[in-house]
Amino acid sequence: MQRILFNEVVTRDGFQNEPEFVSTDAKVALIDELSACGYAKIEVTSFTSAKAIPMLRDAEEVMGRIRRVPGVEYTVLVPNVRGAERALESRADEFNLVMSTSETHNLANLRMPREKSFAGLREVIAMAQGQVPVNVSLSACFGCPMEGDVPEDEVLRWADRFAELGVRGLTICDTTGMAHPAQVRRMARVLRERFGALQLTLHFHNTRGMGLANVLASVQEGIDRFDGSLGGLGGCPYAPGATGNICSEDAVHMLHAMGHETGIDLARLLAAARLLPHIVGHDVPGQIAKAGRITDLHPAPSYVAELRQQFTSLS
Amino acid sequence: MQRILFNEVVTRDGFQNEPEFVSTDAKVALIDELSACGYAKIEVTSFTSAKAIPMLRDAEEVMGRIRRVPGVEYTVLVPNVRGAERALESRADEFNLVMSTSETHNLANLRMPREKSFAGLREVIAMAQGQVPVNVSLSACFGCPMEGDVPEDEVLRWADRFAELGVRGLTICDTTGMAHPAQVRRMARVLRERFGALQLTLHFHNTRGMGLANVLASVQEGIDRFDGSLGGLGGCPYAPGATGNICSEDAVHMLHAMGHETGIDLARLLAAARLLPHIVGHDVPGQIAKAGRITDLHPAPSYVAELRQQFTSLS
Repeated sequence: MQRILFNEVVTRDGFQNEPEFVSTDAKVALIDELSACGYAKIEVTSFTSAKAIPMLRDAEEVMGRIRRVPGVEYTVLVPNVRGAERALESRADEFNLVMSTSETHNLANLRMPREKSFAGLREVIAMAQGQVPVNVSLSACFGCPMEGDVPEDEVLRWADRFAELGVRGLTICDTTGMAHPAQVRRMARVLRERFGALQLTLHFHNTRGMGLANVLASVQEGIDRFDGSLGGLGGCPYAPGATGNICSEDAVHMLHAMGHETGIDLARLLAAARLLPHIVGHDVPGQIAKAGRITDLHPAPSYVAELRQQFTSLS
Repeated sequence: MQRILFNEVVTRDGFQNEPEFVSTDAKVALIDELSACGYAKIEVTSFTSAKAIPMLRDAEEVMGRIRRVPGVEYTVLVPNVRGAERALESRADEFNLVMSTSETHNLANLRMPREKSFAGLREVIAMAQGQVPVNVSLSACFGCPMEGDVPEDEVLRWADRFAELGVRGLTICDTTGMAHPAQVRRMARVLRERFGALQLTLHFHNTRGMGLANVLASVQEGIDRFDGSLGGLGGCPYAPGATGNICSEDAVHMLHAMGHETGIDLARLLAAARLLPHIVGHDVPGQIAKAGRITDLHPAPSYVAELRQQFTSLS
């Protein structure tokens, strides 16, 4: 049975979409707890401008205060050269760079054409060389909420350009929950053929209920790395009604039930997930934290024992 | 591409768990609308006692007033011989009988041991012979929330006993959302080998987020019939925190995206789903009615056109 590795994105991708500031203390405490759960990687924060994303204005302080657990990689989102300098000073284990495969989505999200994004990220990759490994997250790879279909060839073209620059990993993102399992299987097959030497991660959203079906489809094609967000927190402002990233604990629960190892302590992860609504001040989409694991049994109603006795004495 | 058939259970399994009575007019109007959507089957109501399930006390009136569309089968839940008489008078196209494969679940839910349930249902099957086809829904086939594991052999033993009585179909139910995709694939394979001549239906709940993953796993093993509930309405009182049956429109949406035909007009079904919160007086779990289909695109923010022009004039 294939071992599956998770990258937890709740404190970056999840919190970034929250309206109320989460305190630095709460962020550090949550990341330390997640570190103890057994993740392969945690996306801690983003070195973007405090003006653009006030939620992550404490990136340096968070990176300075978390307890680093050996075996866990602490990755950070790096939007540009200035962010890369800050990330290096903060001793990030990996840079995660982001751009979209859809021109309209890139303009909407990053306010520049894809070519300009690529040129900027190429500078960041040059800076990182010999110092820190780079992962590139490509957005809207399974469809754009404004353009519609994003051809597979377009996704591969951008992936190729980054692979040629020597990045360690690629994350293929279904940014607004448009992927379906047949499409995922095709994409996973092509990615593994073409980028088998790179660290390949898939990033799904559960916007249309297909999140775990897409994880299943990916695993069936040999994919072994996923982004997940505690509680299913996160979402994209360009997909109204979206319910967010796939929920880490729901995905881990399914994979464990199927016999896969993840290295994650699910009981401990669920305890962390049950604290999340108190941290963000509202209910979150994750289902296992509410319904319990399939192994969490319930007592029978009291009348069952009486009925059992009654029918036994009759027979 | 395999054609997939749906049985809509919202007005029976869904409404049965609702606290507020849904008017007979509203039930008839909804069923008539669902009939026009292209379902293979609709489980209209249950001929149980009005005292046991007040919500379905209007079973005769609903069956008398709905418009029957050729090609749609109108099935009803029949708990006993008295219910069978009423169902025959109401010209039901099929009897759906229910018992659990878990002794504790059967005692909790039907307040009698499985053997007593079986004996009663055998009488109903004898009554139906030559008049109306019978389907048997077996509950808790993927696990019992009180007993835990339900061995596959136990499920097959009960399925065999009903098959020997000449029923037309079997519905294998994951009553409380405990099934996972690896288990579903194994079960589907065994069921198709053993009961290939019967109408085989799978019934999933999305309690733990695996509903559509389990549909995918079933389809991969050649299963072509599913129960679904509009809006994902329904649930089981013995599974606290449960989110209910798989959502019909979310399942149909996924299967259409993957290239399967279902005979269902998804746009019309979504219009019906969007009325459901008004009928039951609360939000429902279905996601496509909120997020839209993957083909429902959104306009780009107004600044995108400006940015596009600005960057074009620069280059």
